[in-house]
Amino acid sequence: MINKEVAMTSLRSNVSFITLGVTDLDRSRAFYVAMGLSEHPASRPHVSFFDMSGQLLALFPRDALAADAGLEPGTVDGVTTTLSQNVREREDIDRLLQRAVDSGGRVLAEPSAPPWGGVRGYFADPDGFVWEIAWNPATTIDDAGRVHLSDG
Amino acid sequence: MINKEVAMTSLRSNVSFITLGVTDLDRSRAFYVAMGLSEHPASRPHVSFFDMSGQLLALFPRDALAADAGLEPGTVDGVTTTLSQNVREREDIDRLLQRAVDSGGRVLAEPSAPPWGGVRGYFADPDGFVWEIAWNPATTIDDAGRVHLSDG
Repeated sequence: MINKEVAMTSLRSNVSFITLGVTDLDRSRAFYVAMGLSEHPASRPHVSFFDMSGQLLALFPRDALAADAGLEPGTVDGVTTTLSQNVREREDIDRLLQRAVDSGGRVLAEPSAPPWGGVRGYFADPDGFVWEIAWNPATTIDDAGRVHLSDG
Repeated sequence: MINKEVAMTSLRSNVSFITLGVTDLDRSRAFYVAMGLSEHPASRPHVSFFDMSGQLLALFPRDALAADAGLEPGTVDGVTTTLSQNVREREDIDRLLQRAVDSGGRVLAEPSAPPWGGVRGYFADPDGFVWEIAWNPATTIDDAGRVHLSDG
């Protein structure tokens, strides 16, 4: 259903997270640390974060990332990279998924609550590039649209 | 060759460009405009830019992107997404490619000059995720590390 409110909710000009779906998290974590990046204290055994000036570079196991995005793991089209935008209102997820469909994309995963909190949904652009739209009260969004994870 | 200068050149905490290797540039451009993003005036028929708060989302034909990164187009491992970091000194490209090798990655393309100006090289992380390190005097890097394209 298209209404005026939906049409007026735009993708903002910020990518909150760039997530790489990796095959060996320890190896990837070691690589980015060796490149000179500092791991964020919110990192966990199953996910690694690096603060890229108000954007997070996240490392997450590839099959888990594909499953989270509603795609089959291990397929050629398996997700290896996702771009995320964190939104301030839970309702923005539905609005942006609807707008993606209206714009020629498709919904990969309807909004639902992951174990780590908040709510998120996924859409694919016309080529299948995957965007996550996430609302998470544990993630702060500053006035410039940059995201900040709480420590630990 | 490893020397102290190389070891001290780190990947900075900024991703300058997120480039999606698309199969139909006009279709992708129309999608992101329909999502509410504004195309940057530096866009050209063969490349589209969207300013994401000092980071650029770029759309570039997939085979051209793979060729630029020194990879075979059309393979399963063909490049579909690259992350770029713009650096302030030409020499930082060599330093970061060397550091990537020392850290467990590999060089995909040695530094060379593309038709659009500047110099760039590519490395792959342990999973094959592709990073471009670029020096381009036409691209301004502000004190916060954000990149700004000149208009038109």
